[in-house]
Amino acid sequence: MLTIERVAEMQAKAESYRKEGKRIGLVPTMGSLHEGHVSLIQAARARSDVVIVTIFVNPTQFGPGEDYERYPRDAVRDQGVAEQAGADVLFMPQVGEIYPSGFATFVEVEDVSSVLEGRFRPNHFRGVTTIVAKLFAITKPHVAVFGQKDAQQAFLIRKMAEELNFDVSIIVAPIVREADGLALSSRNVYLNANERTRATSLHRSLRYAESLVMSGERSAGKVCAGMSRILSEARPSQIDYIAALSPESFSEIETFEPPSALIAIAVRFGSTRLIDNIVIPISEKREAS
Amino acid sequence: MLTIERVAEMQAKAESYRKEGKRIGLVPTMGSLHEGHVSLIQAARARSDVVIVTIFVNPTQFGPGEDYERYPRDAVRDQGVAEQAGADVLFMPQVGEIYPSGFATFVEVEDVSSVLEGRFRPNHFRGVTTIVAKLFAITKPHVAVFGQKDAQQAFLIRKMAEELNFDVSIIVAPIVREADGLALSSRNVYLNANERTRATSLHRSLRYAESLVMSGERSAGKVCAGMSRILSEARPSQIDYIAALSPESFSEIETFEPPSALIAIAVRFGSTRLIDNIVIPISEKREAS
Repeated sequence: MLTIERVAEMQAKAESYRKEGKRIGLVPTMGSLHEGHVSLIQAARARSDVVIVTIFVNPTQFGPGEDYERYPRDAVRDQGVAEQAGADVLFMPQVGEIYPSGFATFVEVEDVSSVLEGRFRPNHFRGVTTIVAKLFAITKPHVAVFGQKDAQQAFLIRKMAEELNFDVSIIVAPIVREADGLALSSRNVYLNANERTRATSLHRSLRYAESLVMSGERSAGKVCAGMSRILSEARPSQIDYIAALSPESFSEIETFEPPSALIAIAVRFGSTRLIDNIVIPISEKREAS
Repeated sequence: MLTIERVAEMQAKAESYRKEGKRIGLVPTMGSLHEGHVSLIQAARARSDVVIVTIFVNPTQFGPGEDYERYPRDAVRDQGVAEQAGADVLFMPQVGEIYPSGFATFVEVEDVSSVLEGRFRPNHFRGVTTIVAKLFAITKPHVAVFGQKDAQQAFLIRKMAEELNFDVSIIVAPIVREADGLALSSRNVYLNANERTRATSLHRSLRYAESLVMSGERSAGKVCAGMSRILSEARPSQIDYIAALSPESFSEIETFEPPSALIAIAVRFGSTRLIDNIVIPISEKREAS
């Protein structure tokens, strides 16, 4: 596995892969790689001749008071995980290489960037879409893989890539979970043992919602109220949102309608903020109201 | 010359040129091609194997009440001019092809987008940097050529291309002028005969500034005051700005200092808004204060 730190070198390498007719797969990460990332790298591996994994803790997507400084970093361990998972190139630039002094260019998807996560994390998605646009230009991928755990991020990256005409296919890979259902996240290490146990309530609430909708419930309000009870029993420090959404538009829905709905939640335990979501297929047949 | 209207077709064509090892030159225009555009196409021709000229009157760079509707359009004549000047491909998309329903992604360079032209044309440069980023992704150029007449636009496009890591060289070609000094512009056709005569004051004021600075004057205030007198004698309906700037940062300067300065002006005659500028080399030796 090749490790590259410079933009110019990465870009020249990507261009040479393209000239050789090789298909490039990209997996952008912030490091602290876990099995979720491994699944993304494997998904890229299955669709590409060359897999580029990027590790960059992107300062522009962290707000004031968020965990940019303490975000877990372990370059040596990450290199081993990435190589083992099938990466050919690891691109690990320094911050000044990506954001030189006087940097002022941003890519923003309006409207959907400011709801849900965007409401609690102003400018977060502007930072995400900017760094991803930059990484597309630097690594010239044919296909790029993102995780469904960050559902709103995946939605916005897909929209950005389409609307700026990036010639890249966006793949969204399923959430990888611990045995007890907790979605894998680099931020799970912030949880103490007690919080870690209570954090399983996120997945339980989503499974509850799924079973309710699958059995015919069509009222988003009723489903979200039930989820709120389950989450509240786990004594979170805060429930940021419980939202039923259209996967096509990311707008909130009042009624579950075919073909599918997305339920997304953000909950805090102590100072640790966790997100999770589920896509629920909705059948045409209404069995209850 | 090949004429293409679809994004997917243009992008596939650009990709095939790249695979063949051909160097692509891009000249983005809003059509209504004149000798200024011809010089841009020739500059691209000299640096590329394939020259792509785009013609698209970009709605997102026009403000409410501006001339989007009446902007001169003549596709048939433009095709002849582009081919004659050396274009290999003419990309002429419809508006809906570039901005599909629900479009919400914008590329913005902060700060410099909101001064000078940006002060008088809010959101103008956001529209410019967005369409140029899209055209870069669609036509995959190695080199792209813009005109110095739109100096602030050229500055912002270069900054955007660098900061989003587009793998493209930006060339800025000199202003082309009429025999009496008026900078060529598609908007010159809006001028009636009397306004057309008075519009030569723009170039005269810039030449006056140049001679003053070359003879040792170092006060931007004094030079701009002299220019204001010359422009006022031509009875403009409004002088939007007369600005002495650093070409490196586009920030206003009070004193002319080596190695060069940019003087940019925007003046209205009737309802027609004209811009012009000059780059003045500044020698180390101060001959006067």
